[in-house]
Amino acid sequence: MRLHTANDVRMKVRRLREGHGYIMTVEIISVGTEILLGNIVNTNAAYLAEKCAAIGLSCYYQEVVGDNEERLTGILQTALARADVVLLSGGLGPTQDDLTKETAAKVLGRELYLHEPSKAAIADFFRKRGTEITENNWKQAMVPEGCIVVDNPNGTAPGIIMEDKGRHVLLMPGPPDELIPMFENAMIPYLNSLQPGIIYSQTVKVCGVGESKVEAMVEDLIREQSNPTIATYAKTGEVHLRVTARAADEKEAKKLVKPYVKELKGRFGNHVYTTQEEVTLEKAVIDLLLANHLTVGTVESCTGGLLAARLINVPGVSEVFKTGYITYSNKSKRKLLGIKKTMLEKYGAVSPQIAKEMAKGAALFGKADVTVGITGVAGPDGGSEEKPVGLVYIACNVCGRINVKECHFSGNRMKIRESSVSSALSLMRESILAYYSEVTFGKKS
Amino acid sequence: MRLHTANDVRMKVRRLREGHGYIMTVEIISVGTEILLGNIVNTNAAYLAEKCAAIGLSCYYQEVVGDNEERLTGILQTALARADVVLLSGGLGPTQDDLTKETAAKVLGRELYLHEPSKAAIADFFRKRGTEITENNWKQAMVPEGCIVVDNPNGTAPGIIMEDKGRHVLLMPGPPDELIPMFENAMIPYLNSLQPGIIYSQTVKVCGVGESKVEAMVEDLIREQSNPTIATYAKTGEVHLRVTARAADEKEAKKLVKPYVKELKGRFGNHVYTTQEEVTLEKAVIDLLLANHLTVGTVESCTGGLLAARLINVPGVSEVFKTGYITYSNKSKRKLLGIKKTMLEKYGAVSPQIAKEMAKGAALFGKADVTVGITGVAGPDGGSEEKPVGLVYIACNVCGRINVKECHFSGNRMKIRESSVSSALSLMRESILAYYSEVTFGKKS
Repeated sequence: MRLHTANDVRMKVRRLREGHGYIMTVEIISVGTEILLGNIVNTNAAYLAEKCAAIGLSCYYQEVVGDNEERLTGILQTALARADVVLLSGGLGPTQDDLTKETAAKVLGRELYLHEPSKAAIADFFRKRGTEITENNWKQAMVPEGCIVVDNPNGTAPGIIMEDKGRHVLLMPGPPDELIPMFENAMIPYLNSLQPGIIYSQTVKVCGVGESKVEAMVEDLIREQSNPTIATYAKTGEVHLRVTARAADEKEAKKLVKPYVKELKGRFGNHVYTTQEEVTLEKAVIDLLLANHLTVGTVESCTGGLLAARLINVPGVSEVFKTGYITYSNKSKRKLLGIKKTMLEKYGAVSPQIAKEMAKGAALFGKADVTVGITGVAGPDGGSEEKPVGLVYIACNVCGRINVKECHFSGNRMKIRESSVSSALSLMRESILAYYSEVTFGKKS
Repeated sequence: MRLHTANDVRMKVRRLREGHGYIMTVEIISVGTEILLGNIVNTNAAYLAEKCAAIGLSCYYQEVVGDNEERLTGILQTALARADVVLLSGGLGPTQDDLTKETAAKVLGRELYLHEPSKAAIADFFRKRGTEITENNWKQAMVPEGCIVVDNPNGTAPGIIMEDKGRHVLLMPGPPDELIPMFENAMIPYLNSLQPGIIYSQTVKVCGVGESKVEAMVEDLIREQSNPTIATYAKTGEVHLRVTARAADEKEAKKLVKPYVKELKGRFGNHVYTTQEEVTLEKAVIDLLLANHLTVGTVESCTGGLLAARLINVPGVSEVFKTGYITYSNKSKRKLLGIKKTMLEKYGAVSPQIAKEMAKGAALFGKADVTVGITGVAGPDGGSEEKPVGLVYIACNVCGRINVKECHFSGNRMKIRESSVSSALSLMRESILAYYSEVTFGKKS
């Protein structure tokens, strides 16, 4: 069955390659009553949509439907009538409520059979965890005739690929820590194999430049785009620019993408913190610290530990992170960092002077090369005409040279704090880069 | 037009009230290419779904569609054929791309006209911000004939309610900070007015008990439920139980809900941290500290500031929060908290002993009544057979009495850290409550 199907795929691929230029469409169906009830946010759909866009599939519809055979049947039939690829996530669990696989098989007129390798994998999964298998778990080893079975090393429900009259139905488990690795490792290569040529994309990540400015700066490129295309993705405090090309092979696609990435790097200069998909802004900062043998310390008031928490989310941070202080009260600013009471009274806790003193204090008491102080009004209370909610001062000290940035953020308390952290990371990068471009070699220490 | 429509609504309400027991269905359509591309996560749908469930509407389908007239028309027609209420969000902006209102009006056979109060509101909005109005903004003041216009104090696109053959189409702007207040203030009262009687719900929030245990403990109640219903919502480290009743008036509905809330409080005892919708676990902890005139300090290793950040997200925390330390390295544990090198060598940084020393150190150096120390292996590296990834020790010191909890979490680095923070908050509550139940009055200080 498997071989037969794989052969069909190859035939299909050949036909598709001949019809060069056709863009496949994908429809994303999320199955789960917990999404319909608003119990959880549908992050799977966003993840799948972004990945599908990156490999050149067009998505026109997404749906959410509960664990209900009749309604799922209707949704799936509609999707099959209008899309080349249908992604289904959720409803592959062991209970009677989970009926995505059974329903999809019925819609495509397939019987289920016991797939021995999946049965063995499930047994193995439970054995490793030292837990008992319940009888209903074997339901997860039943798969539709003529399907491709996809391993799930992170759970018990295998993934399923079915092909029917030129349509492709992909079933994946709902938990993101099972779905994401399965999609990356098995489904993306499969979907790439269906398309004429290949899709290659690279992301240029920019920080310290506002979204609208970034868009204005690439407007001409986007207006004239055909292959590659350029898409902008705004995140808190940063913007990602994805350059995507379609070509006969990877070499050719890379050749198409390269000049655009170079052009973007030229336009945004030092604001480009990475061109690697997996590198986050905090990782870029940590890497910069590691490369320069610098240690880091933080002092936070309104952000209350969020900056340290983001830095510490980078594995391997222990080599550079020294100490973090959370000095929410004026008293702790004085006690822990030795900031003078007269200064606090003169300038107020939310001031460029105090941000600077916080960064200095962290260097002195926390003994780190690069230190950051953040103080601001996160709201909803505590704002004034002179110092409104959203006013934040960030100071970054690199080996004694201190930069202070004044920011005005909007949104609720959490939004203001998250924006502050992103700005602090941008300022850290800028300050370290400026330090090394200004200080002549040997003068540093 | 408006009055005529309002009259229709009242007629409808009367008819519906007569047909007691009918549950209205709702379909949620999110319009936006940025959702189809996975550029943003569809939090609006989750928000609307949860709110609709809370007021007793049944949701069977959710859809996402781009800013495309043909496809939106198809989706809207399908939704109108199967749901009583259709919620549309997004696509109400001033550009040519925004066509939700125009499309919905066309589907329902209505012309648009210039709504003078909306025009005045838009002009006012721009005047207040001191920015120029561009000509295309007036498009947002055009509304369908015979609709109810809903004010939008947070943006320029008004909300729209249309009624057609017993169906209700509600249009809302996409930005959450416009959609949420509009839904709470105008759309929920409208939807409530359509239903026979009223819906009242109360949430019992439980911490420190696992999801499956909570479900087992209320299984009998859920099995026998009719009115009120009980639904469980699992969050990181906590479970929310929502009791929802439908009755002729609020008094009667509250009477139906009350014994169930009492029963749940009895079953979960001290694990119930609130029965108020807006109270978070961190807010409950801060309130408990305030009520007992206690101050708080934190020392974090693997969580790196996340616990402090969550506490500091509660407005008004400045009265209780003293100092937070982030001691990621052993050196900082020694320097800042005076933990002996011999202890760190003997037990290792991830041990109940060191968690205890961290909490003690925070009390001594940070001068707080309640202190928490967290140390653990967040992964992906750093785990061993003896101390695997996910092992976390949390110590809570209340005026010298210290509790230590050993936890085993699964998931990625971020998940393990978030679970640690939730467990720390639960432990803080438990420890403070236990302290006051054990210590006789007057003995405390």
